[in-house]
Amino acid sequence: MSSREEVLGRVRGALGAARGTAAAVPRLYRRRLGAEEAETRADVVALFTERVADLRATVRHVSADELGTTIAAALWGREAKRIVVPADLPYGWLAELEGVRALADSAVTDAATLDAVDGVVTGCAVAIAQTGTIVLDGGRAQGRRALSVVPDHHLCVVHADQIVGTVPEAVARLDPYRPLTWISGPSVTTAVEQARVPGGNGPRSLEVLVVDE
Amino acid sequence: MSSREEVLGRVRGALGAARGTAAAVPRLYRRRLGAEEAETRADVVALFTERVADLRATVRHVSADELGTTIAAALWGREAKRIVVPADLPYGWLAELEGVRALADSAVTDAATLDAVDGVVTGCAVAIAQTGTIVLDGGRAQGRRALSVVPDHHLCVVHADQIVGTVPEAVARLDPYRPLTWISGPSVTTAVEQARVPGGNGPRSLEVLVVDE
Repeated sequence: MSSREEVLGRVRGALGAARGTAAAVPRLYRRRLGAEEAETRADVVALFTERVADLRATVRHVSADELGTTIAAALWGREAKRIVVPADLPYGWLAELEGVRALADSAVTDAATLDAVDGVVTGCAVAIAQTGTIVLDGGRAQGRRALSVVPDHHLCVVHADQIVGTVPEAVARLDPYRPLTWISGPSVTTAVEQARVPGGNGPRSLEVLVVDE
Repeated sequence: MSSREEVLGRVRGALGAARGTAAAVPRLYRRRLGAEEAETRADVVALFTERVADLRATVRHVSADELGTTIAAALWGREAKRIVVPADLPYGWLAELEGVRALADSAVTDAATLDAVDGVVTGCAVAIAQTGTIVLDGGRAQGRRALSVVPDHHLCVVHADQIVGTVPEAVARLDPYRPLTWISGPSVTTAVEQARVPGGNGPRSLEVLVVDE
């Protein structure tokens, strides 16, 4: 008998009669927001805005018409000279961007280049009101994971119809086989001696533009 | 009896026993390319290129990596200063476009503005090898119909996987409820006294970039 068979045999023995049966997973958590938290769609969007702001991100509402000028103004305000974007970002988002050079990301853009830019602009897959979380899945206008992790400033465009109430609602919309990045505010770590260090695992600054329907 | 009832009554009378039965539509045409026309996928793409060129359009093959620089070079070659694009055109297509101003189209862009630009860049929904036709359906990277009709130069990006062999194959891929624009070469009309007038109903010049897989 090999070691592998021996170990598996012990596991089977320990499982006994329970072997092959699925364990019951308690799912007593709330799947949707209660009426006291958000009664209407507008309340869900307002709750998201509030929670994102609580996480020390900047958040602003814009109409679809203003999106191009608002993105340009936000980058000018930070004196950004060079940014990176996913190659499939809608052109209109950057159409007003005079004086800022936007690099279209590709597989050959290296980490040093991403580290040297003044920021990144992306969309998202879904956003969660209750937790103020934005989820990227590498789909349209989001690019690969490095884009939202390496640059120090992340400007993220969230369409109001991408905002759901709760984490279970977000999970229902997402494909678990895609590379998911869950972003709850700017990056902060306290991993070393409990000291609060911003930007340890991602951008130090997160700016969210909610595009109203 | 109203005129309407009278007319409908006559129609019903004329139909007689055939009323309510569906007429048989002969569908004896070929639905796919024969082996003599195109045996492999590469042959389908090559046939498309050949037929588009026959229609007096410029056609070129590019790799996805070169697309941004090829679009820029094509516009520089035409001395284009100002172009218009659908707002959702992938940013990477225009990332190398220095010295050319790209206007993101919106519902308020008027015909005079579209007429004044040096060209338009769009994608397409599907392309047909046998007829050298490109079909736009107003979907992603295509914009509204005016965009591909008013400007005098149209640069159209066709991904190789969007090319099908025949019209029936194209129809099967398209949604008949969308606004479809079928483009077979640059616009030419002979409607007035049989004289050949270029640009009567659309762009005088069509440039096609086929992005190979």
